[in-house]
Amino acid sequence: MAEILMNRQEVYSYLLDVFPELFPEDHSPYDVVSINPDEAVLAFQANETHLRPGGTVSGPALMTLADLAMYVVILAHIGPVALAVTTNLNINFMRKPSAGRLLGTARLLKLGRSLAVGDVTIASELEPEKIVAHASLTYSIPPQKS
Amino acid sequence: MAEILMNRQEVYSYLLDVFPELFPEDHSPYDVVSINPDEAVLAFQANETHLRPGGTVSGPALMTLADLAMYVVILAHIGPVALAVTTNLNINFMRKPSAGRLLGTARLLKLGRSLAVGDVTIASELEPEKIVAHASLTYSIPPQKS
Amino acid sequence: MAEILMNRQEVYSYLLDVFPELFPEDHSPYDVVSINPDEAVLAFQANETHLRPGGTVSGPALMTLADLAMYVVILAHIGPVALAVTTNLNINFMRKPSAGRLLGTARLLKLGRSLAVGDVTIASELEPEKIVAHASLTYSIPPQKS
Amino acid sequence: MAEILMNRQEVYSYLLDVFPELFPEDHSPYDVVSINPDEAVLAFQANETHLRPGGTVSGPALMTLADLAMYVVILAHIGPVALAVTTNLNINFMRKPSAGRLLGTARLLKLGRSLAVGDVTIASELEPEKIVAHASLTYSIPPQKS
Repeated sequence: MAEILMNRQEVYSYLLDVFPELFPEDHSPYDVVSINPDEAVLAFQANETHLRPGGTVSGPALMTLADLAMYVVILAHIGPVALAVTTNLNINFMRKPSAGRLLGTARLLKLGRSLAVGDVTIASELEPEKIVAHASLTYSIPPQKS
Repeated sequence: MAEILMNRQEVYSYLLDVFPELFPEDHSPYDVVSINPDEAVLAFQANETHLRPGGTVSGPALMTLADLAMYVVILAHIGPVALAVTTNLNINFMRKPSAGRLLGTARLLKLGRSLAVGDVTIASELEPEKIVAHASLTYSIPPQKS
Repeated sequence: MAEILMNRQEVYSYLLDVFPELFPEDHSPYDVVSINPDEAVLAFQANETHLRPGGTVSGPALMTLADLAMYVVILAHIGPVALAVTTNLNINFMRKPSAGRLLGTARLLKLGRSLAVGDVTIASELEPEKIVAHASLTYSIPPQKS
Repeated sequence: MAEILMNRQEVYSYLLDVFPELFPEDHSPYDVVSINPDEAVLAFQANETHLRPGGTVSGPALMTLADLAMYVVILAHIGPVALAVTTNLNINFMRKPSAGRLLGTARLLKLGRSLAVGDVTIASELEPEKIVAHASLTYSIPPQKS
């Protein structure tokens, strides 16, 4: 099990810095809920721009949530110096989520020197047992200067 | 090989109607370039909101392009009545694309009664041989009323 | 959460019947270890035909284990009448497993009328925390006669 | 476009050496049909051990064909010295193939220093337009000694 190098606040501050367009300081739709060994939970409050006709959250908004939740769990375990990028994302959409707060729970399945693999389970905060989408992701981790 | 039921203009008009947030009439970043049997090409002109630090196009922007290009090739072959939704998307990111016009070329590999399967190859219009990302997608097609 | 319709012995007997080539009665490499709500564990004892030079278990043997473990969890929850087939499988290989008993733990993430989605985590029985491979699968479930 | 370093016969001889269990000299079900820039075709003649009840080719047999076809196209372009392993495979099953000769056509989409990405389209030799399965794969390529 990997050691935690950044806590919830440190990860969030780092995201504000590097993704200002996703994390505008005063009204970001994302929130880092918790970080635990090999796990992180990212919340997402969909707004009108993320909805499709009928009031369901769009597929791309769910993919972005999965991608970010995986990034959060990696950051928490490798620290802020690394520039990790997604190389593969696979997602199954299972239910159409209504607007409301969604939670993306990311598990770190492997943290190697050059690749990190994990999965993300997305569900509404109000109905956590009804899984909305499930994604598997691989990130490439660039070599660290020592 | 499936028959084409909607041409380029008909698909584009339909998208303007159903996805007004993605296709604002006067400045949409997307454009339907061509529709051919079992194939469609969708162009995407990334703007500042789609870029990451360093000027590369974000992963979610590429996933959205793949998802829409697949939707376009399905629409063109089943017509405007159908409400198709993505059930699976798998994407490999191969190169970081610079800002500029990207083309997503969608191939329809199978069009069944309830599922459509295809893939989308994304490359810059200026360097078509350097593939930026490649996605495989499955859409669920609801039963048609007759 | 779905109800369990077949127990461990019933699933195993059914597999002996329908997959005689994979489950020869006297020396099958597979064993149904446990069935619980939305979960099943399938064991696999690799023999020489499943090994690659160096003594590691081949990729196709791991994919077969993932596919079967998912089939087991579906069977347990829909009963023996259904003819389910894999429509999508995505697998990440994380470590090369040595010969020995492997466990594939399948979770049922969604059991719908026409599609079942789940994931399978594969690890050696002796080192369960070192994940060897992780797969996500979709099965198509044919309409039931009533 | 990558340069071809091994021809059809050289790749086949190499496979006989490294995968004796898959390529028994006198009756292998696999045959390297052709190698071209960024493309390779591998044939597979399913025998009784690869069939499911009803006479269709099993999913694992198709996954093995996809995995091997991708390996062939990589070998042809990096030469026999490399020990490449699959890190990700995603496959969509579209039609149940009858027994008979199947062709797996592998495209090399990216050949980097440490990762190769491609896809494989599988169809019966007799009905090449009816795609049976389509897979996307990533191989990890170990660093070369120079």
